[in-house]
Amino acid sequence: MNEMKISEAFTWIEPGPVVLVTTNDGKKNNIMTISWTMVLDFTPAFALTTGEWNYSFAALRKTKESVIAIPTVDMIDKVVGVGTCSGADTDKFDKFKLTPVKGKLVKAPLIEECMANIECKVVDIVKKHNIVVLEAVAAYFDSLHKEKRTIHAVGDGTFIVDGRKLNRKIMMASKIP
Amino acid sequence: MNEMKISEAFTWIEPGPVVLVTTNDGKKNNIMTISWTMVLDFTPAFALTTGEWNYSFAALRKTKESVIAIPTVDMIDKVVGVGTCSGADTDKFDKFKLTPVKGKLVKAPLIEECMANIECKVVDIVKKHNIVVLEAVAAYFDSLHKEKRTIHAVGDGTFIVDGRKLNRKIMMASKIP
Repeated sequence: MNEMKISEAFTWIEPGPVVLVTTNDGKKNNIMTISWTMVLDFTPAFALTTGEWNYSFAALRKTKESVIAIPTVDMIDKVVGVGTCSGADTDKFDKFKLTPVKGKLVKAPLIEECMANIECKVVDIVKKHNIVVLEAVAAYFDSLHKEKRTIHAVGDGTFIVDGRKLNRKIMMASKIP
Repeated sequence: MNEMKISEAFTWIEPGPVVLVTTNDGKKNNIMTISWTMVLDFTPAFALTTGEWNYSFAALRKTKESVIAIPTVDMIDKVVGVGTCSGADTDKFDKFKLTPVKGKLVKAPLIEECMANIECKVVDIVKKHNIVVLEAVAAYFDSLHKEKRTIHAVGDGTFIVDGRKLNRKIMMASKIP
């Protein structure tokens, strides 16, 4: 994995892909599949939402650290698998043959098989809405990752795969950070 | 436009498309292009973020109403155009030949050219992070809309168009509301 400019990390989240979020509670690693994320600003900061029912949420609150990893379409069955079992009784790295990699600034692991990984610190939790606010502190991408297409959850059990890319850089020039 | 079950409205937002958000401040309609949204729960509730620099934000705060409209890829130049000018000096419905349609429960207009429209009430604004929390109150889709592909902003002036769809309904059965 190659380290990348932190100021570009938001470009992995902005298109709205399904992501894997890792935590380490001091004893073990865990992973959750999350589709409910958004960019908050270009620092970059992100929001995600989850709740008490989620086993990872306790680790996220306790350690105030996580990694957001970006899986590609070839990983869809691992992504769905991770999202449909619980870290309470499952070692998801082991079960889904995912490889934890030590990060630089947080104890939550990067996922080697993912196209990109973002180390994040939890800077706030808006309790009323269970919104977790994260600040990215380091970001990596795998320059050898051949599959570039991410997946987007529809919420009904179907997923949309990335298609073609359109360039509007000239029209957007005034808005690009 | 056909009214649809409000409980399914989150399926337009969950995949993370660029959306158009309309407001009406009592005098005029306005539209903004937003990529920073997320689903908060299945009621459905959504979060979006914007800030003081955004002309629509004042109307959103004052009226506590908006419509989230889902444009398709054939509208990309309108979407980018709406996002790169200001309602302070531009009638965006007029300039981009978009048609405002009266909603049922909010004064913010639906956009006829969009594939789907969701009438929303602002239920909270988390000032610290400029997060607007919206509850959907009515939802519509255009059953005659031929183009179904939405677009996802990367944040660097490029956009990813929806590609193929994958079905994992059986694996996901335990998680589908």
